[in-house]
Amino acid sequence: MKRTVVLVSGGLDSTTALAIARAEGFECYALSVDYGQRHHAELNAAARVAKALGAAEHRVMRVDLGGIGGSALTDASIAVPETPQSGIPVTYVPARNTVMLSLALAWAEVLDAEQICIGVNAVDYSGYPDCRPAFVDAYERLANLATRSGVEGTVHFRISAPLIDMTKAQIIRKGLELGVDYGMTVSCYQADDDGRACGRCDACRLRREGFAAAGAADPTRYVR
Amino acid sequence: MKRTVVLVSGGLDSTTALAIARAEGFECYALSVDYGQRHHAELNAAARVAKALGAAEHRVMRVDLGGIGGSALTDASIAVPETPQSGIPVTYVPARNTVMLSLALAWAEVLDAEQICIGVNAVDYSGYPDCRPAFVDAYERLANLATRSGVEGTVHFRISAPLIDMTKAQIIRKGLELGVDYGMTVSCYQADDDGRACGRCDACRLRREGFAAAGAADPTRYVR
Repeated sequence: MKRTVVLVSGGLDSTTALAIARAEGFECYALSVDYGQRHHAELNAAARVAKALGAAEHRVMRVDLGGIGGSALTDASIAVPETPQSGIPVTYVPARNTVMLSLALAWAEVLDAEQICIGVNAVDYSGYPDCRPAFVDAYERLANLATRSGVEGTVHFRISAPLIDMTKAQIIRKGLELGVDYGMTVSCYQADDDGRACGRCDACRLRREGFAAAGAADPTRYVR
Repeated sequence: MKRTVVLVSGGLDSTTALAIARAEGFECYALSVDYGQRHHAELNAAARVAKALGAAEHRVMRVDLGGIGGSALTDASIAVPETPQSGIPVTYVPARNTVMLSLALAWAEVLDAEQICIGVNAVDYSGYPDCRPAFVDAYERLANLATRSGVEGTVHFRISAPLIDMTKAQIIRKGLELGVDYGMTVSCYQADDDGRACGRCDACRLRREGFAAAGAADPTRYVR
């Protein structure tokens, strides 16, 4: 059975990416990265999602991006914005997706997995540079130069980003078709310990607008 | 003062790379990665080297590559070879340099550093794919697509690999010119707790041959 590593944060997008990889027939190895984010509700959600969607294994790797700061998601002294921002917002975490793909690449090489799946999206998204097609393409090129498998040709790594051109509504409709229960996912940047969403941050806004545009009931539990 | 992050393992090559970056006038931020390697003698050496060569800061980041295994350097059940190997040897650690550059990129972005310096070498080396010029070039391209600084053009990241085309003897001569005390470095894949080298692994062989070819005294402390 062909294998893929899937980066699973516990949010809506990565959960849908996992459901798609399963539907494509991959044996899925779910990887979550504890990088010092504000809350662990996402990581708890990732564990639930990996189990519910039949991942062969769920691994959490820790790396202390919080120690270097530079983002509202890793530095408690920088507030999460609750109004739309222009440009790249302060919730951007320096090099986060590059770090997460690199950890996924290491695991993929050990597993002989041919694919790494990441739920990045460049349509209804927050404007992060490491969510764009040019980034994904450059990473795929790097992956095949960086590794034994790539160089020896035993594996050609593909970076799969199945959501990259989809609107949030399309992502939600796709997931619902595949039977995803979005009630178990957490997208909020500042969820409480119980996984309830603030309803005000950029991630909450995009998610709520997505359910409305999809004409689907929003199962999100909000703090208020 | 222009800034660089320098990956410092505590070995001969990365120590020389740090000395070169200092000589080039950079304020140097030394980064060591505790990835689950066999021994900590290297990391102890990295701390000594960073201090001796005037790094502005030395940071150790932990990431558990040992948990996924796949290399003689992270899996105690795989022996370190003591005879020359053909092809890419079992001491290759899956995606190690990709992971380490990604952590360096995250820190560099927070520091507004314009350069990441890595002591990879493609001449007298062990044949790892992530030590070759094509890998370094692909990473530099990625870095400028992956980050806020790269996309907004506030920084153009350069991946500096000053040793990549040098022989081990040239590296040693360059370091000695710059006043490096190689007695404080540890290259051995299986050094003991006191930092004494086995004298038999590939890293020891390349290092010893390098001192001989440079016509320099070898300050390495060997177990026997």
